[in-house]
Amino acid sequence: MQLSNNKKKIINDPVYGFVKIPSDLIYDLIEHPYFQRLRRIKQLGLTNLVYPGALHTRFQHVIGAMSLTVQAIEILKGKGIDITDEEKDAVCAAVLLHDMGHGPFSHALEHVLIKDVDHEIISLAFMNSLNIEMNGKLDLCISIFKNEYKKKFLHQLVSSQLDMDRLDYLRRDSFYTGVQEGVIGHDRIINMLNVSDDEMVIEEKGIYSIEKFLIARRLMYWQVYLHKTVIAAETLLVKILERASMLAESGNELFASPAFYYFLYNKPDKKAFLLNDDVLNIYSELDDFDITNSIKVWCNHEDKILSELCKMLRDRKLSRIEIQSQKFDEGRIAELLKVTAIKKQIALADAHYFVFTDSVKNEAYSLDGFNIKVLYKDGKTLDIANASDQYNITALANTVTKYFLCYPKNL
Amino acid sequence: MQLSNNKKKIINDPVYGFVKIPSDLIYDLIEHPYFQRLRRIKQLGLTNLVYPGALHTRFQHVIGAMSLTVQAIEILKGKGIDITDEEKDAVCAAVLLHDMGHGPFSHALEHVLIKDVDHEIISLAFMNSLNIEMNGKLDLCISIFKNEYKKKFLHQLVSSQLDMDRLDYLRRDSFYTGVQEGVIGHDRIINMLNVSDDEMVIEEKGIYSIEKFLIARRLMYWQVYLHKTVIAAETLLVKILERASMLAESGNELFASPAFYYFLYNKPDKKAFLLNDDVLNIYSELDDFDITNSIKVWCNHEDKILSELCKMLRDRKLSRIEIQSQKFDEGRIAELLKVTAIKKQIALADAHYFVFTDSVKNEAYSLDGFNIKVLYKDGKTLDIANASDQYNITALANTVTKYFLCYPKNL
Amino acid sequence: MQLSNNKKKIINDPVYGFVKIPSDLIYDLIEHPYFQRLRRIKQLGLTNLVYPGALHTRFQHVIGAMSLTVQAIEILKGKGIDITDEEKDAVCAAVLLHDMGHGPFSHALEHVLIKDVDHEIISLAFMNSLNIEMNGKLDLCISIFKNEYKKKFLHQLVSSQLDMDRLDYLRRDSFYTGVQEGVIGHDRIINMLNVSDDEMVIEEKGIYSIEKFLIARRLMYWQVYLHKTVIAAETLLVKILERASMLAESGNELFASPAFYYFLYNKPDKKAFLLNDDVLNIYSELDDFDITNSIKVWCNHEDKILSELCKMLRDRKLSRIEIQSQKFDEGRIAELLKVTAIKKQIALADAHYFVFTDSVKNEAYSLDGFNIKVLYKDGKTLDIANASDQYNITALANTVTKYFLCYPKNL
Amino acid sequence: MQLSNNKKKIINDPVYGFVKIPSDLIYDLIEHPYFQRLRRIKQLGLTNLVYPGALHTRFQHVIGAMSLTVQAIEILKGKGIDITDEEKDAVCAAVLLHDMGHGPFSHALEHVLIKDVDHEIISLAFMNSLNIEMNGKLDLCISIFKNEYKKKFLHQLVSSQLDMDRLDYLRRDSFYTGVQEGVIGHDRIINMLNVSDDEMVIEEKGIYSIEKFLIARRLMYWQVYLHKTVIAAETLLVKILERASMLAESGNELFASPAFYYFLYNKPDKKAFLLNDDVLNIYSELDDFDITNSIKVWCNHEDKILSELCKMLRDRKLSRIEIQSQKFDEGRIAELLKVTAIKKQIALADAHYFVFTDSVKNEAYSLDGFNIKVLYKDGKTLDIANASDQYNITALANTVTKYFLCYPKNL
Repeated sequence: MQLSNNKKKIINDPVYGFVKIPSDLIYDLIEHPYFQRLRRIKQLGLTNLVYPGALHTRFQHVIGAMSLTVQAIEILKGKGIDITDEEKDAVCAAVLLHDMGHGPFSHALEHVLIKDVDHEIISLAFMNSLNIEMNGKLDLCISIFKNEYKKKFLHQLVSSQLDMDRLDYLRRDSFYTGVQEGVIGHDRIINMLNVSDDEMVIEEKGIYSIEKFLIARRLMYWQVYLHKTVIAAETLLVKILERASMLAESGNELFASPAFYYFLYNKPDKKAFLLNDDVLNIYSELDDFDITNSIKVWCNHEDKILSELCKMLRDRKLSRIEIQSQKFDEGRIAELLKVTAIKKQIALADAHYFVFTDSVKNEAYSLDGFNIKVLYKDGKTLDIANASDQYNITALANTVTKYFLCYPKNL
Repeated sequence: MQLSNNKKKIINDPVYGFVKIPSDLIYDLIEHPYFQRLRRIKQLGLTNLVYPGALHTRFQHVIGAMSLTVQAIEILKGKGIDITDEEKDAVCAAVLLHDMGHGPFSHALEHVLIKDVDHEIISLAFMNSLNIEMNGKLDLCISIFKNEYKKKFLHQLVSSQLDMDRLDYLRRDSFYTGVQEGVIGHDRIINMLNVSDDEMVIEEKGIYSIEKFLIARRLMYWQVYLHKTVIAAETLLVKILERASMLAESGNELFASPAFYYFLYNKPDKKAFLLNDDVLNIYSELDDFDITNSIKVWCNHEDKILSELCKMLRDRKLSRIEIQSQKFDEGRIAELLKVTAIKKQIALADAHYFVFTDSVKNEAYSLDGFNIKVLYKDGKTLDIANASDQYNITALANTVTKYFLCYPKNL
Repeated sequence: MQLSNNKKKIINDPVYGFVKIPSDLIYDLIEHPYFQRLRRIKQLGLTNLVYPGALHTRFQHVIGAMSLTVQAIEILKGKGIDITDEEKDAVCAAVLLHDMGHGPFSHALEHVLIKDVDHEIISLAFMNSLNIEMNGKLDLCISIFKNEYKKKFLHQLVSSQLDMDRLDYLRRDSFYTGVQEGVIGHDRIINMLNVSDDEMVIEEKGIYSIEKFLIARRLMYWQVYLHKTVIAAETLLVKILERASMLAESGNELFASPAFYYFLYNKPDKKAFLLNDDVLNIYSELDDFDITNSIKVWCNHEDKILSELCKMLRDRKLSRIEIQSQKFDEGRIAELLKVTAIKKQIALADAHYFVFTDSVKNEAYSLDGFNIKVLYKDGKTLDIANASDQYNITALANTVTKYFLCYPKNL
Repeated sequence: MQLSNNKKKIINDPVYGFVKIPSDLIYDLIEHPYFQRLRRIKQLGLTNLVYPGALHTRFQHVIGAMSLTVQAIEILKGKGIDITDEEKDAVCAAVLLHDMGHGPFSHALEHVLIKDVDHEIISLAFMNSLNIEMNGKLDLCISIFKNEYKKKFLHQLVSSQLDMDRLDYLRRDSFYTGVQEGVIGHDRIINMLNVSDDEMVIEEKGIYSIEKFLIARRLMYWQVYLHKTVIAAETLLVKILERASMLAESGNELFASPAFYYFLYNKPDKKAFLLNDDVLNIYSELDDFDITNSIKVWCNHEDKILSELCKMLRDRKLSRIEIQSQKFDEGRIAELLKVTAIKKQIALADAHYFVFTDSVKNEAYSLDGFNIKVLYKDGKTLDIANASDQYNITALANTVTKYFLCYPKNL
């Protein structure tokens, strides 16, 4: 972040150019250690093993999303929508903080170490903690975040099927992976936003851009976020944490920073997060660096399974992975487990660290909940699934499920 | 074009960077006056009245398409497909020449002045003429262009639902209009090309890119090529040519370059093009500059209708245009014609120059003819409409028709 | 230009994305036929013969410059500089109109047809004419343009060594030619603008960006604007106009639109422009299309010299050109003239149409007049030539002169 | 890295698009754990604290430089320069491995932990080790790297004032920081490369591009690499390592991964690196994650100085820094040290951790050693400092030194 001394605050962003910090509140939030921690959490976890450029952080993402929010609010105000400066500030803060609860490699962590704790709950815990520190300055922000504020469309800027979060991450992930498929006309979409009946809507002229946005998002899912090598890497990380967790439970000593150690050996649950400020504080010390550093050290751990899994990740010697629309055959899996146990000289009961199957799913457009509405010139609105006469958006609403099977390369 | 003296021929292209001219044959074709004429024909006709940057020419487009062809051929050869140097040269030449028959503002011209003559027929006439001049060097090129050559996939690079022409124009039109919706992963698509059973196919991994390509093309149609203001401008041009043509028939003198004059006053048909070399030669002298210059001069013509139509185009005071999925009401049109005749003090029979309706249509994917096929790892191929388990490409195969109605702004 | 019905006026620009039209005054100016004419005048004349993408128009350029002006004014206001809405509008109008006097291929035209008339004088004539039509709404704009307004820094946004004109054209010409050398950090420069003592200054942190800007401009001169093939083409156009002009004087009939005809046969001088509104009106009908169309027709003119010169341009068979730091040897030129006369079977006195020498010059930074000043944190300012301790900007202030010699390729 | 199963190896690079892996040797090198380690070492150390996007790794950089090398070699071969496939492979390998010796935050590390060991020595040690493992396949690569091979120009592609390393890092750092000033015409430069008298030269037409390249590099130095906030962060890291090192020497226990621990407590010298394979192996386990993770843990260390320094870095609460052309006044420094000691309640002898001065220097073009030579059409070559008649490149050869002073913000 490049801030000139005289408080004309500007952040250099390779995606949008110069991003201005719109207010002192936003500035203070960005300066807070809780927020600076997002500099150390990659937006796309292990995706860089497939797309080496995908090293951007949640810090960059939320600042980008905040900058789109400022743009959107100015467009809406230009169209006569009433938004006060205080509301603007609060929405920007909400966009900035909505992802704060993310831990390092969230997906893997949420599978093993903080099992029943959703990152949005932790985001809220952070907001509440900051709000106390800031003497209630975040009251409105929290109210919008929780969708308790009267102007519902403000919440939709923060969280909906067309929120600033999605607009930014598609654009940004596309930029850093180099996958042009994700480039969307975010400028055009933002210019076409409007509010009708207290709901965010898109003007009729923007209908094709929305369709393209939904398609782009779907394609980014299959091409990047759920790319099969990414899945192989992320499930490997889950297996590593499972093994480490098991070893921790059995009293083995594992190299870990104090923060990581706490989570490995204590596994706090949702209640602990909500009731105990210390847990939140320890969590705030945890980032990509703790996990990756431990994995590197564990490559030399005496537990053969742990060290082998860790080396596979460190040196990018990933499992073979197959992906298909149907479940994999049980018999084949059993056979693979058996062969693996023999080959690696481990117990059959441990072979599941190397051979496993699971599924991923994605739906491009959700028909329930906050649908995207199109605003016509006559003032009427229509769900985009019904509005678009050229294309069957309903088809995008099908949940697509894919099954994958991982197993060692040289069986 | 920037050519260094020592025959290392390079063209500077803002879209792809440096484009290399692959051979002497290609160099000689580019240097030919028939080809240089394409520098004076805009790729997108009057689209620049909506997107001011859309001034790129057919010259730039075919050179871009040729450069993608070179890339595609190298990828295919790297995959073991047998393509000789002579074949490579011939395909590149075919791509380079396939659009040569386009006249200025083709759409309008083909409606009025060269009514039954398709631009592909004229392209072929140009190729034959060049082939004579070049002593048969274009034999193979012409054979591929006419799809008479044994290796059918070479023709598909020139003309199919996934040809280099489309890959280039989507990318290029997107660049010059600034409409990001048209950006496609052309690199990725080209990398995924393969040949199976003498047909161009796309490898399984490229399936999402193709889907995105089809969507991008469809969106570019509605957002750019068939943008309603573009339709208003292009139909206005048709009306101008109709009026001028009628005046010419009635013996009125109109300012025009000799080439344009010939077409206005003689209206050669298909036979004339094929049998009479002079017609082709005169046609080769016709470009955007003749038409636009005449229109500007006609702004001061004594025929009130012609001069008003011309001023509307020159000064970008276009008609109002409505667009919808159903035909427009006959009664309403009759009423508009009547009011216009009165308001403009012209005969009712002439009101159709200012009030008219017609339709445009587009289908994103055609199910008949050369479908796009997906190649699986086991060597099987499948039409993409059946292959893509995530999405209903069949939906894209529906022809979408839209009706429009133009009438003066201040009735 | 894409303007939505409901007056939210937006222009799609591939360089900056969406450009907003800031006010009704600006909107009305853009809609005026005088301004729409700029759509038909290329920014870089014949440069597209070397860089095929360089087809952008003066229309696009001045709208881009206007958009940078809006940005600059907002930055300055954010720093506490007092600029009223009326002043903002007037500066924007001045930037928009400052190039309006440009004719087609200005350089060539100013050499032959409107010999002593600077384009700035014609711009002013247009402004005065528009001002009468608009009942004095352009008073302030004209005052700023003529540098008669009290706030001198407003004029510097319109015209100085760091004006919005230069920032836009470097960025834009770089974009359309594909020459990355011209890319400048215009965002950064604009962010570093400030006002001190009623003068535009650049803050200390922007010093490197300015240096880079001066270098980029110098390189664009030698690589693009004064590229030797561009010089060959533009001097060829001068020769064509000279020959046509001579033929006109001798009573020969030449194909030309009425507007072009008027200038060819009457050659109005400065006084005519200033005193006679008709001349301005005829001039407003003249653009690239008139000139190019005539040249194409003249390819078949019976005057051998004219037709050959025109074919050279139309078919891009340009002269050989040599360029060097010293004047060319008189003896060699005489010899070339003689050989050319023989070879082409023309009079020696006419050989100068094919063999000629002249010079071009450029200085990257001018030491006299409105220098670029750097503002230090202590409030002091210094000319950048003295300020930059790393680099000798004074060196950039040297005028570089190069001599060129053109002659037929196959002597 | 995205590798398709069938060995058509491609890496997705957001800067250049698809990068092809040219041979099996290169593929095997990239797959080696020594090389994969470069994924965990950022190219620009702590620069992301100023430019948040600057998170790209040495892995990406050397692959980019390798890809430019392939391009350059193909251009040179096209100009008739004799380069065998084996030589091509060896140069590519040398470019790929030339930076392998870099440790995390090299600058800081080389100041404190591996004091007299240059990263090039370690690169060579890695190459030798790999060469043994690969049975001499890197013989030619090492010979070129050490400039012992007969064709000197091959070494110049790896290391010179115009090597592929510089071309890539300027382009790449510019992309990731968003500082457009660093964009260079690398395509153009590579196209203008040639070989004369066994030396890499640039053809006359490329002279402006080189000038621009030198300026761009100089500006990137002052705007990015030596940006004052970057200096503040990097010197802070040096201070942290100094303090940790001192504590280690005094027998304090510090949290560190085994690899980092080894370097903190043993400080191996050059001899150790060269003679002891274990040191190289331990070094290969050290990357950004070890250092950053320790610093985060040390924030809670009982040593007040260490913990405060670490918090400053973690939370981005950096020192104030002043920068100027002259040395700072001794008296002022002494005073700052005294005030700091009092304010922070530490010994005066320890105040130097918070208050310190040093200098940075840069020269844009070096006049000694491998100068950049320009090749004229007549075959002569000239040092660019003498060749460029437009500009005084000699001025760029001056070493610019700047002094900086860091001290706590709230004294």
